[in-house]
Amino acid sequence: MLKDIKELYDKDLIGEDLILEGWVKNHRKQKEFGFISVYDGTHFKPVQMVYDNKNKDFEEIQKIKLGSAVRGFGKLIKSPAKGQEFELQLEKIELEGDCDDDYPLQPKSHSREYLREIAYLRPRVNLFQAVFKIRSVASMAIHKYFNDRNYVYVHTPILTSTDGEGAGEMFQVTSLDLERVASSGKVDYDKDFFGKKVGLCVTGQLEGETFAHAFKRIYTFGPTFRAEVSNTKIHASEFWMIEPEITFCDINGLMNMEEDFLRYIINYVLENAKAEMEFLDKFVEQNLIEKLTKILNVDFARIKHEEAINILLKSNKKFENKPEQGKDISTEHEKYLTEEHFKSPVFITDWPKDIKAFYMRLNEDKKTVAAVDLLVPGAGELMGGSQREERLDKLQKMMKEKNVPYESMNWYLNLRRYGGTTHSGFGMGFERLLIYLTGVENIRDVIPYPRTPGNCEF
Amino acid sequence: MLKDIKELYDKDLIGEDLILEGWVKNHRKQKEFGFISVYDGTHFKPVQMVYDNKNKDFEEIQKIKLGSAVRGFGKLIKSPAKGQEFELQLEKIELEGDCDDDYPLQPKSHSREYLREIAYLRPRVNLFQAVFKIRSVASMAIHKYFNDRNYVYVHTPILTSTDGEGAGEMFQVTSLDLERVASSGKVDYDKDFFGKKVGLCVTGQLEGETFAHAFKRIYTFGPTFRAEVSNTKIHASEFWMIEPEITFCDINGLMNMEEDFLRYIINYVLENAKAEMEFLDKFVEQNLIEKLTKILNVDFARIKHEEAINILLKSNKKFENKPEQGKDISTEHEKYLTEEHFKSPVFITDWPKDIKAFYMRLNEDKKTVAAVDLLVPGAGELMGGSQREERLDKLQKMMKEKNVPYESMNWYLNLRRYGGTTHSGFGMGFERLLIYLTGVENIRDVIPYPRTPGNCEF
Repeated sequence: MLKDIKELYDKDLIGEDLILEGWVKNHRKQKEFGFISVYDGTHFKPVQMVYDNKNKDFEEIQKIKLGSAVRGFGKLIKSPAKGQEFELQLEKIELEGDCDDDYPLQPKSHSREYLREIAYLRPRVNLFQAVFKIRSVASMAIHKYFNDRNYVYVHTPILTSTDGEGAGEMFQVTSLDLERVASSGKVDYDKDFFGKKVGLCVTGQLEGETFAHAFKRIYTFGPTFRAEVSNTKIHASEFWMIEPEITFCDINGLMNMEEDFLRYIINYVLENAKAEMEFLDKFVEQNLIEKLTKILNVDFARIKHEEAINILLKSNKKFENKPEQGKDISTEHEKYLTEEHFKSPVFITDWPKDIKAFYMRLNEDKKTVAAVDLLVPGAGELMGGSQREERLDKLQKMMKEKNVPYESMNWYLNLRRYGGTTHSGFGMGFERLLIYLTGVENIRDVIPYPRTPGNCEF
Repeated sequence: MLKDIKELYDKDLIGEDLILEGWVKNHRKQKEFGFISVYDGTHFKPVQMVYDNKNKDFEEIQKIKLGSAVRGFGKLIKSPAKGQEFELQLEKIELEGDCDDDYPLQPKSHSREYLREIAYLRPRVNLFQAVFKIRSVASMAIHKYFNDRNYVYVHTPILTSTDGEGAGEMFQVTSLDLERVASSGKVDYDKDFFGKKVGLCVTGQLEGETFAHAFKRIYTFGPTFRAEVSNTKIHASEFWMIEPEITFCDINGLMNMEEDFLRYIINYVLENAKAEMEFLDKFVEQNLIEKLTKILNVDFARIKHEEAINILLKSNKKFENKPEQGKDISTEHEKYLTEEHFKSPVFITDWPKDIKAFYMRLNEDKKTVAAVDLLVPGAGELMGGSQREERLDKLQKMMKEKNVPYESMNWYLNLRRYGGTTHSGFGMGFERLLIYLTGVENIRDVIPYPRTPGNCEF
């Protein structure tokens, strides 16, 4: 019977005749016997195929090379070897696809930088088998969480003429021939595909709000883009984002939901990617599982921005960036708050309006807005959200103040005129979550094919 | 207790004191009593809130307007009215957000064209409540299908320098200031964000193949783009695509999987969007549910392209496009094959190599390739797939023949050198599926914010 390797770990198949397909991770040859370790990616752990010189194909089998694709036939038996429950007593092996001798993944340690250069092969090594499996498992956790709670999944547009964050870091998308633009000396948007200037979305929030006002609760989960020249470990030009939007919900309801959501994902990943998490715990971030398990039980702190600054000022810590009322909170501040002061995730609310986006609800003090950032120990800001401004006049005023082109955004304003609600939402960068879940520090190592300034390979 | 309307339909809550939030779909006022129909988007059907003039707020309640957001308090009781099981005996109603009198969604019939112009409001009307809910339910079906069968979900890149289909219909993405390009008279890609010419993906297949060779089975589900000036009912410039890729799998295994996959989705949607499907069956496509249910039990025909042409030639039908050996099959031909001749879905295999993509496996006749299109009654081509060419020399030859820039695609070729496998995959346009599932004919009506030539609103 043809089986995925995962099935061997899920069911008791000892004693059965099986066919297993996969790739050779290792081949230890002895004079009289040999061990071929085969993985197929359906389970983190490989299966050992054992053979000896009583096998009539012994010499042929010994030629099987690292990296090649094979199909092994044999009986699954209890393994006498330590560290594995079972092994396949190999009767026959077929070579599905050979592997050339210049195979880059020789059995030695490779730097992550080197593996990035062969991004098309790296999902075959342990680290990336774990990371990209967890990426898939965490995606499922997210869809399942929302689906089970009556959220509707909305595909907000990627191509857009709206700069949702008002930050002006959009890539432009065009069907114009740039060489012709250069030679003709003018940009003729009438001839461009959409008849106007269009870019790649930086958020789906505004469109998400429109659907939330029809389905009560919605979420997006799709790619977003930032044309920001920022070469850090945590910035990519293309990344996936999750943006729930909830009507009839204020900032407190939002924080409750964020806590519940994060705990759900952690729990789901720990349960559904056990072997992967154990590997990462052992080889990538010590005590990763403990760090995550703690979150399941600890209360999340909730403080105002003003209090956060006060805590930082009173800390007697030497910060490179001096904490200051009315100003942003930097990475070192986040670290102090989550890892030293509270030793837990922290919601920071009521941010100065000048450093936050136009759509956030103005508080009664008229200086702060109902924004909320969730900071987590070891990864800093994980979710950024707010209660949205539902009052038309205040929204218009804020858009003017922040120079948002509100003339073309009547549809967004109209949401406040036609059955508007108290509503809230947040955005979570999916890769930021993965960095937190896997302990892998560089965003380039949690995206299949990372895009950063100057880098768009494959 | 605060409840989603969905919960009233899922559980027995009659006799309970409830709080319900939502939007007013209709308000029938009589002299002594009134009925407010409220929906919240968690269930297709609304709930009737009933009140009379014994209520101390009678006059206030009568002022509640169509489209406004409300919060109703009362007891859920068995309804004496026909066509509904229960209603809310309204004790109190709070106005969460009022609705201006110029609300465009007055209770009358609106054309789909008009509703497209107010795409930000249309998810509030029955048709789009159904369509976009089904979009969400079908998405979940797809994720669940793959997840349950050990497929890994891969986010292939959106920004890419590879033209995966070799069709040259890519949008260009740039951070260059086009006005400056025009005035300077030259395009300086060194100064562009990625240091070279980059575009939006038309497929994730090639990158998907690399991950399939690490995880056995993978799928993608993400947006793709075509800068094709084609104003038809079934083409959009931005659409979502599902692309599974399966190693150790030939074209027959692929067809088996496609059948199973389609049946699973249909079944899941019929079960999880019952009220929506009944609505569409009644008002959009007569016998929609019957059409879909039939697919669950019928065998899918499997014929070669050559046989398909022969059937068409022998049909005595007058086609606008004459069927011809070696040529493509047009919409009217698809219609004849699925609706008249076979009366079932049809797989057409073994297509002439000249009209198919470079990566498809060359058959022994050296004239055809192992491509397979799945045609379904009422929607034409739903899935387009193939067994991939795993033989390096034949792949290189085909790439040269078809002028694919293989020099920059060594990584793709290398997959054939490092443990390559017999592998297959297909692409399914998600909107094409939705057109089929909902009976809604125009692709613009199954995407939240459609993008077509000259149209990129919101």
